[in-house]
Amino acid sequence: MNRYTIGIDFGTLSGRAVLMDVQTGEVLASSVYTYPHAVIDEKLNGKILPINTALQHPEDYLGVLQTAIRSVLREADVSPEEVIGLGYDFTGCTMLPVDKNATPLCFFEQYQNEPNAYVKLWKHNACQKEADDCTKIAVERNEPWLDGYGGKISAEWMIPKILQILRESPKVYHDTERFLEAADWLTWILTDQEVHSIPFAGYKALWNEVDGYPTEEYFASLDLEMKNIVGTKLSKTLIGLDGVAGKLSQKGAELTGLPVGTPISVPLLDAHASMPAVGLTDEGSMMLILGTSSVLMLQTKEKKKISGICGSVLGGVIPGLYMHEAGSACCGDHFDWFVKNSVPAAYEIEAQENGIGIHQLLTEKASKLAVGESGLLALDWFNGNRCVLSDSDLKGMILGMTLRTRPEEIYRALIEATAYGTRVIVDNFVAHEMRVDRIVASGGIAEKNEMLVQIYADVLGRPITVSDATMSASRGSALYAAVAGGAYEDIREAVRALAVTTGKTYHPIEENVKRYDTLYEEYLRLHDYFGRGENDVMHRLSTIAKQAAGN
Amino acid sequence: MNRYTIGIDFGTLSGRAVLMDVQTGEVLASSVYTYPHAVIDEKLNGKILPINTALQHPEDYLGVLQTAIRSVLREADVSPEEVIGLGYDFTGCTMLPVDKNATPLCFFEQYQNEPNAYVKLWKHNACQKEADDCTKIAVERNEPWLDGYGGKISAEWMIPKILQILRESPKVYHDTERFLEAADWLTWILTDQEVHSIPFAGYKALWNEVDGYPTEEYFASLDLEMKNIVGTKLSKTLIGLDGVAGKLSQKGAELTGLPVGTPISVPLLDAHASMPAVGLTDEGSMMLILGTSSVLMLQTKEKKKISGICGSVLGGVIPGLYMHEAGSACCGDHFDWFVKNSVPAAYEIEAQENGIGIHQLLTEKASKLAVGESGLLALDWFNGNRCVLSDSDLKGMILGMTLRTRPEEIYRALIEATAYGTRVIVDNFVAHEMRVDRIVASGGIAEKNEMLVQIYADVLGRPITVSDATMSASRGSALYAAVAGGAYEDIREAVRALAVTTGKTYHPIEENVKRYDTLYEEYLRLHDYFGRGENDVMHRLSTIAKQAAGN
Repeated sequence: MNRYTIGIDFGTLSGRAVLMDVQTGEVLASSVYTYPHAVIDEKLNGKILPINTALQHPEDYLGVLQTAIRSVLREADVSPEEVIGLGYDFTGCTMLPVDKNATPLCFFEQYQNEPNAYVKLWKHNACQKEADDCTKIAVERNEPWLDGYGGKISAEWMIPKILQILRESPKVYHDTERFLEAADWLTWILTDQEVHSIPFAGYKALWNEVDGYPTEEYFASLDLEMKNIVGTKLSKTLIGLDGVAGKLSQKGAELTGLPVGTPISVPLLDAHASMPAVGLTDEGSMMLILGTSSVLMLQTKEKKKISGICGSVLGGVIPGLYMHEAGSACCGDHFDWFVKNSVPAAYEIEAQENGIGIHQLLTEKASKLAVGESGLLALDWFNGNRCVLSDSDLKGMILGMTLRTRPEEIYRALIEATAYGTRVIVDNFVAHEMRVDRIVASGGIAEKNEMLVQIYADVLGRPITVSDATMSASRGSALYAAVAGGAYEDIREAVRALAVTTGKTYHPIEENVKRYDTLYEEYLRLHDYFGRGENDVMHRLSTIAKQAAGN
Repeated sequence: MNRYTIGIDFGTLSGRAVLMDVQTGEVLASSVYTYPHAVIDEKLNGKILPINTALQHPEDYLGVLQTAIRSVLREADVSPEEVIGLGYDFTGCTMLPVDKNATPLCFFEQYQNEPNAYVKLWKHNACQKEADDCTKIAVERNEPWLDGYGGKISAEWMIPKILQILRESPKVYHDTERFLEAADWLTWILTDQEVHSIPFAGYKALWNEVDGYPTEEYFASLDLEMKNIVGTKLSKTLIGLDGVAGKLSQKGAELTGLPVGTPISVPLLDAHASMPAVGLTDEGSMMLILGTSSVLMLQTKEKKKISGICGSVLGGVIPGLYMHEAGSACCGDHFDWFVKNSVPAAYEIEAQENGIGIHQLLTEKASKLAVGESGLLALDWFNGNRCVLSDSDLKGMILGMTLRTRPEEIYRALIEATAYGTRVIVDNFVAHEMRVDRIVASGGIAEKNEMLVQIYADVLGRPITVSDATMSASRGSALYAAVAGGAYEDIREAVRALAVTTGKTYHPIEENVKRYDTLYEEYLRLHDYFGRGENDVMHRLSTIAKQAAGN
């Protein structure tokens, strides 16, 4: 009898399941379930939401469990009994408040119209003020853990999101039994046991393996109400990736269609799950995920304290190694914004006539431009800055337009801006004596857009291999499930047996590298001018905008 | 028998004739002739043109004379004999090389594919290098006239354009009998006499009433070949607006259909012709023309030396007064660029469904935004900077975009940027103790876009009256024609009798004024940062772009 695992990647707009053969690593079936509520960022039941709000509905995640698992089993003609383990990865910090039965507060009628009762998606940035307060107080108190987060607490993380709930909706705060990651909520739903994942706590909730969570004094300084949050509204029951989260309960079995008792692996962050899937288990191997946003991951044997990272967690991906994560808050989001808001009808018609998509048309036109020919330069901060500057109130900028500037030139400038943003991160790693021996890229954009990957290789001045592994996050989750199911001793062994290590390599083109070096210097200067306080115009404009909108 | 004059406004894309009753000022008929060749800025007979090239074909101007005059006569049912004078205004410096018979060099087969043999339109900026050299040498030689041009020679003017021809196409230079304004070329064609207009020479060819043209030494420093240009390739036969340019020759009569001997007034710059048409003949009255580009005009009794103006000419409009011209190189051009390149198909469909144009749709949406609500700020330099900075290599910039930014927000930010650019000019006038008592606006955009005029009033903090006079430049030309035809003693008398002095006044809204004051401070800071050398990134990007394009 063959044995299989199922890995599910819970992304920003959909959940994607794969069914993997644990002898060969072959993916026999896959299924995508698109969240019906998508991202709730403009209105909630007709009520206009504050700027930078990004909510989700937890029902959508249950929908993935109900449909995608059954779908891959059916497609591969595999019976549920042949599945030895289930694993999943999730966006984070994507958090929600639940009651003592794990019921999300937004499921109760009294909270249906209360934004703070819903899932706050990773990119929910409306708590920037709270994040700033968290950082300020940590700096004042000289908190030892702050360096591990690059010296700054992001609005995307757990504690600012909780603080926003407390400040805006104290009743929600008080009615909450637990604030938790959506990933951990699924574990609870599936196993009937409350267990929290160390990677999520480490990257998103200021937890580390030495000190645990911040102290009562720190939380009390944020708000007295939060003093005793650890162990009450924030669980201390944590488990690492080398453990098993639990086994499928009766309720979990009914939800998924898998047998009671099926082992569930400990969930990890969606982008991180790709690393084992493409075989990156050593120091010096960098993973670059290019999707809605972009993520860079690099492991070291020693603990490193560097600025501008989202976090470093021992055992964040591979037990025994520190995994450092950094990234851009905006990558594909950027290009999608452009396509939706700034591409003229003539281009849409041209794309239709050629039977291609707008992205492809723009890419074809942009590919014909020489490096620097457009005279344009952009800052990739349409969704704030998540790397060295860690400031979600920063905004986009485009410079160099003339009356002859064409859409494809702006499109290319936006792509280049994200490449420059990536180089800022890589240069920062290297400056901290971290080895960067090779780069493997993954994600929808890396697979689809050859021009973009070549630009990244040219801007970074390093070869980039685009992994052949499709759906790499889901594959990675299937690998952890294989360990949880007992098919392999540990994740390293599973990777050796099952990872996809082939791919197409893009080598930097010398002439382009030189020209991009020059352009990158210009980017850096504007990056520092607008991002490090020399001209704080972006923040002042944000303040004016909020006043003008009456927020 | 009634008596009439015809005034023609030669603009960037068309010529527009009006037929005016010289007793009442009433316009009885008007006619527009669109130039078939429009602006030649991408290809000339299939050959790609260098960046910033903007050429025209002189045949198009003759087309206006052949059709528009006959058309207004026919429409008003007036016989040619009832016309007592013909006047015209023209864009400038819009210049061309001709042989001794006034035949444009581009009419000869050998020069059909030579860009330098064609009309260089006012906005032809490809001679920025030459303009920089003209300024540099004038500064080195401490030329006394340089202050009268704001300390900087624009690429749009006559001498840099001639220098470009000499450098790139010495054969064209040597075959040229005269370099002259298209306006003066028309006078030559119509009267068979070569007479040059003082306003054009004063504003565009470094001529002034005290010193005449620059010295032989100056021209020799530009290029030895140019040493003797004055009196040879550059005519010294100049005449002011209080004179008569000449009378219609036999050839001119055949061209226009008007009688031989019809008096022709001295042409003036297109924007300037609007001043008398709306009744502005005194010190302290400012005219603001909002069209493709924008022009500000203000007269003083005393000579003023101020930076950032395009020129000051004694008798530039009204004999005895100095008329100071300033302006933005990009106004409507800006918004048209946006509509052509950055408005999504969904908006085009919405506009069609509502039976309105894209500009109107965007304006309706943008009108609903509070001042500052978008968080956006732009620099209005898509066509370079023609005012205080006088630098055609400056470029546009937009800052503050997020993933929620909508097209109408960018559209409004571009409009606001042109208003800030206008305020820089007005503030500069006031700083030089020039009276600004009232502002009268004119031009297509002022007439069509109420939101835009209100934004200008709010940004300037001053009331703006949009004149009821349609086709004000053509009307102004018809007024000078009335003086040339003997109906009035001088232009002041013609203005008192015939000008249109009514209009709608837009008063500044206090709350908006305050908020725009704050935003204007941000604009100014970026204006200086990018425009005054603190960060010369726009110039460096231009250089890289030229190298990349292989220019």
